Amino acid sequence: MGLFPRKIKGFRDIDPELNAVRWHIINKATEIYRRYGFEHWDTPILEYAELLGKYLPDVDQVDQGVYSFKNPELEPVYDNLGNELRDEANNVIMRQHYVALRYDLTAPLARLYSEFVWKRFINNQLHPGKAPLFRRYQYGPVFRFEAKLDPGRYREFWQLDFDTVGSDDVAIDAENVMVLADALENIGIERGKYVVRINNRKIVKGFLKSIGITDENLEQDVLRVIDKADKIGIEGVAQELGQGRKDKKSGAFIAGLGIDNQVIDQIVTFLNSFEQNSQRKTILDRLANLNVNHQIFEQGLEELNKIHQILLNLGYDEQRAIIDPTMIRGMGYYTGPIFEVEYLGTYTDEKGRKRRVGSISGGGRYDGLVQRILDIKVPATGASIGVDRLAEILINQKLTQDTKGPVLIVVFDEKLMSYYQKIAQDLRKQGINTEIYYGASKNLKKQLQYADKKHSPLAVLLGEDELQQGVVTVRDLELGSKMAKNISDKKQWKQQLQTQVKLDNLVQFVLDKLQKS
Amino acid sequence: MGLFPRKIKGFRDIDPELNAVRWHIINKATEIYRRYGFEHWDTPILEYAELLGKYLPDVDQVDQGVYSFKNPELEPVYDNLGNELRDEANNVIMRQHYVALRYDLTAPLARLYSEFVWKRFINNQLHPGKAPLFRRYQYGPVFRFEAKLDPGRYREFWQLDFDTVGSDDVAIDAENVMVLADALENIGIERGKYVVRINNRKIVKGFLKSIGITDENLEQDVLRVIDKADKIGIEGVAQELGQGRKDKKSGAFIAGLGIDNQVIDQIVTFLNSFEQNSQRKTILDRLANLNVNHQIFEQGLEELNKIHQILLNLGYDEQRAIIDPTMIRGMGYYTGPIFEVEYLGTYTDEKGRKRRVGSISGGGRYDGLVQRILDIKVPATGASIGVDRLAEILINQKLTQDTKGPVLIVVFDEKLMSYYQKIAQDLRKQGINTEIYYGASKNLKKQLQYADKKHSPLAVLLGEDELQQGVVTVRDLELGSKMAKNISDKKQWKQQLQTQVKLDNLVQFVLDKLQKS
Repeated sequence: MGLFPRKIKGFRDIDPELNAVRWHIINKATEIYRRYGFEHWDTPILEYAELLGKYLPDVDQVDQGVYSFKNPELEPVYDNLGNELRDEANNVIMRQHYVALRYDLTAPLARLYSEFVWKRFINNQLHPGKAPLFRRYQYGPVFRFEAKLDPGRYREFWQLDFDTVGSDDVAIDAENVMVLADALENIGIERGKYVVRINNRKIVKGFLKSIGITDENLEQDVLRVIDKADKIGIEGVAQELGQGRKDKKSGAFIAGLGIDNQVIDQIVTFLNSFEQNSQRKTILDRLANLNVNHQIFEQGLEELNKIHQILLNLGYDEQRAIIDPTMIRGMGYYTGPIFEVEYLGTYTDEKGRKRRVGSISGGGRYDGLVQRILDIKVPATGASIGVDRLAEILINQKLTQDTKGPVLIVVFDEKLMSYYQKIAQDLRKQGINTEIYYGASKNLKKQLQYADKKHSPLAVLLGEDELQQGVVTVRDLELGSKMAKNISDKKQWKQQLQTQVKLDNLVQFVLDKLQKS
Repeated sequence: MGLFPRKIKGFRDIDPELNAVRWHIINKATEIYRRYGFEHWDTPILEYAELLGKYLPDVDQVDQGVYSFKNPELEPVYDNLGNELRDEANNVIMRQHYVALRYDLTAPLARLYSEFVWKRFINNQLHPGKAPLFRRYQYGPVFRFEAKLDPGRYREFWQLDFDTVGSDDVAIDAENVMVLADALENIGIERGKYVVRINNRKIVKGFLKSIGITDENLEQDVLRVIDKADKIGIEGVAQELGQGRKDKKSGAFIAGLGIDNQVIDQIVTFLNSFEQNSQRKTILDRLANLNVNHQIFEQGLEELNKIHQILLNLGYDEQRAIIDPTMIRGMGYYTGPIFEVEYLGTYTDEKGRKRRVGSISGGGRYDGLVQRILDIKVPATGASIGVDRLAEILINQKLTQDTKGPVLIVVFDEKLMSYYQKIAQDLRKQGINTEIYYGASKNLKKQLQYADKKHSPLAVLLGEDELQQGVVTVRDLELGSKMAKNISDKKQWKQQLQTQVKLDNLVQFVLDKLQKS
C-alpha cells in the first residue's frame, strides 16, 4: 500500500517565514482599516455559485475562473422572494445546486449585505437612496480555477479588503486612497516607494461618449483595448482600435475594432495629453481645458476635483497619490472613481532581468454590487490588497524582519532531562520561546542543524561535568551562521560562539543576548 | 430579476464581536505554542480526498462527513512511487479526482510531512526510528459534510492545532498537557476553571487483552461502548457489553456485544476503580495494584508515570491535570497517551437548564499518522483546540472584553466637512480609531444609532455656532447606553453625557476619556 503525497495543482503550503510576512501585512494593514472605522467580518469559504455572480452551465466541467462543484445534496430551488418553487404536482423542486469556493471577498459582501436588508427589500421598504451604511474589512483565501497556471500563480491566494456600502459620497473614495497609503506605510513600505494612482471611470466614458462612442458594447471593447496600452503602447492601441495589428511576440494577427481614423486620432490625443508624474492640479486643469462637452465627463471631473481637494487639505500630496486619466483597471464592474497602487521598486527575476513590480492593490466604486441580487442600486466603494503579491515583494526587497526560532535546549544526556525541562520552564516564564530537542537522533550536529533550520538564535548545552560546576554553555547560533561564511581557525571560532554562564544567571544572560541581537 | 440571498446550510458569517473573540483565542494560544518551539505552517483548504484518508465511492453523492467533490479537470492517476499509470495502449490514464475541503488539520499535516520525507522514502533512506523531527502549529477553518445538522453545529468551523512528528518520547505528551494548560490560562480561563484529563490507550487496551479480549474488532467495539459511559452510565455499558439494552429516550433496543458476564464484571470493576478527582499518584498506585499482567498495560503505566513525574517536577498539579484511566476519546486513531480538556463551568441553555460545558480541546499520540501514506510508522502527538466552541464559552461566561468601535464624527453640516476630516485625521494620528459618518441619511438620531450599533465609545459633534466659538461637543455613548436603562430627566441626562471641549484640546480629551473607560 501507500499513496503518492502531493497537493492539487495551484495550491501550496505556507512555511513559517512566509506566514510571518503574511501576518505582518494583515496585522499592520487591519490596524489602519480599524483606524478608519472598518470592522472585521468574515464569510464562508463556500457559497452558492449563483450568488457569487458567475452563472454556470449545467455540466460538471466548469470554467471562467470560478472553482465550483455540485453540492452533494438535493436542495429546494427558490424564487427571488425566497419561496420554494413547485412542479405541476405541487412537489417542491429539488436540485443539486452549484457551490463555489469564493473567488474574491466582494461578491460575498454583496450576499452578506443583501441578507441584512432582505426583510426590508421584500416589504418594499428599502429606498436605494437611503440604503444603510456598512463598513467592513475582511481577509482570507480566495480561489480561482485556472486550467493552465503560469509559474508563480496560484489557485488559492489571500486578499485583504475594505469596503463601504451605502454611501455615494466620493469623500469615501478620497479616504480609500488615504487608507491604502497609511496601510502600506504601516506595513513598512516607505513613502516614495509606492504611489496610489487615481482615476474616474466617468472621465474616459464621458470622453468616449462625447466623440460618438455611445454603444455600450463598443465602449467596453474600446476600454479593453485602451487598458492594454501598458503592454502594447499607444501605437498598438491605435492599430487595435482600427484595422488590427500583428502581435510582435506571437506573430498572430489581432483583429481591430474598425473605428474611424478620425475618432482614433481623438482617442490617441486624449491618451497622449497626460504625462506621468504631473501635479494633480495640472492634470485636472488639462482635463477641464479639453472642453469635453458631456455630462458624465463633467461629473467625473467634479468628483476627481473633490477627491484631490480632500487629499490636499489633509497633506496627501503627489508623493502618495497621483491622477492618471488613462488608467482603466479591467472591465465592467467599476462605475466611478478607481485606484491602483503601484510599487515603484524593481526586482531582478530568475533570468537576471530587471522588472517593474507593478500593481499591489486596487479598488474603486462599484454601484452595481447589490443590484445583481436585489435588483436595486446601492452605492459601494472599496479596495483590496493582494497579500501574497505584497508578501513576495517584501521578501524580494528584503523588507522583512528575520523570524527568530526558539532557543534550543540541546539534549546531551537523557539522565539530565529533568534539568533541561526546568531550564526550559524558567526561560518560558520570561516569555522566551524555548524548545527541548526531543528528536530520535541525539547526535549534537543533528540537533544544531535542526536549530539552524528553525532559525534558533541560541542553543543551551548542559552536560554532567557542567552541572557539577553549576554552569551551562550558551552557543550563539546567529553569530555562528554569520561567521561560518569566513571561517579560518575552527577552535577560535568555537570560542567566540560559546559562553559559559552560571546556571543561576542563565535566564538573564539569554534575555540580554536576545535583546541585543 | 433578482436572487434570494442566503448561505449554504451549516455555514455562517462571523460578526466583529465573534471575530474579536476568535482572534483573541488564536493570538493568545499561538503565543504559547511558539513559546514551546512550534512554528506556524499553513496548508491548502482543498486537498485530494484520498490523501486526507477517507475513501470515497465513485459517485457524486458522498457521505461520511467529508465535504468532497470531483475536481473539474482530468488529471493523471499515480502509483505510490509517483509514476503515472498507463493503459494497455500506453496512454496515461486520466481521471477526475475527488477533492475535499479539509476535515481537520491533522490529515493535511500527514500529507505535508510525507512530502518532506518523500525523496528519502522512495530511495529507502527513511529509517522509521529516525524520522526527522517536525513541530508545527496551524489554525483555520475545517469542514464536515453532515446532511442533518443539530442546532449550533456548523459545517465550517475553526481548529487550532499543535503537533510534533518524529519523536516517540512521552516527555512531549507531558509537554502537550502543559501547552494546553498554559494556552487556556493565557486566553483568560482561570486555573481551577478547566482541567486536562490524561489517559493512555495502552492502559485500557492492555487491560482488555489481559482479560481475554484480544480480537481487534471486538476491542474496538468494547472501547466504543465504554466511551459511552458518560451518557449511559456504567450500568448501561454493562448491558451493552452483554445482552443489549433498551434506550431510555428513544425506547429503541440496542443490541449488545454478547460478552460473558464474568468478563463484563471485570470491566465494570475496572471502570469503578477510579474516583474522579483522586490524586494522580493514588490512581497510578491503584493501576499498579490491579496486577494486570500484560506488556502493553505495563508500558502504558510506565508512560503515564513518566508524564506524571514531569508534570510534578514542573509544578503542574491536580488543579491543572488529572489522570482518568476510563477516558477513551473516540475510536481508532490514537495509539498512546491521550488528553482532553474539560471546561468546569456550567451554563444555562435556552430552556433555562444548567448544563456542563464539557470538552473544549483534545489530542493524543497517533503513531499511524504517516503510515496510511508512506506505509511506515512515524511517531506523532499533538492536540487541537476547538476555537468556535471555546469562543462560545468565553461569550457565555462573559469572559470577553468589550470590543470598542470607532469614535464617530457626526456630520451636522456638509459645509463643515473639511473640519470633520481634519479632526478625524488628528485623532487617527494619535492611534484613535475614528470614522466620519458618510451615510446617506444625515439625521442625528440615525447617526447615533449607527454609532451604538458599532459600539462607538464617543461621538464628536460640531456645528457652525460651535465652530465660531472654537469648541466641539463630545458625547459619551457608553455612558449613554448604561444610563438609558434608568432614565428619568431627559434634559439632565443629556447634560451628563455631553461635554463641551475646546477644539484645540479635543485630541487630549478623547485620549483621556478612552483610557479611563
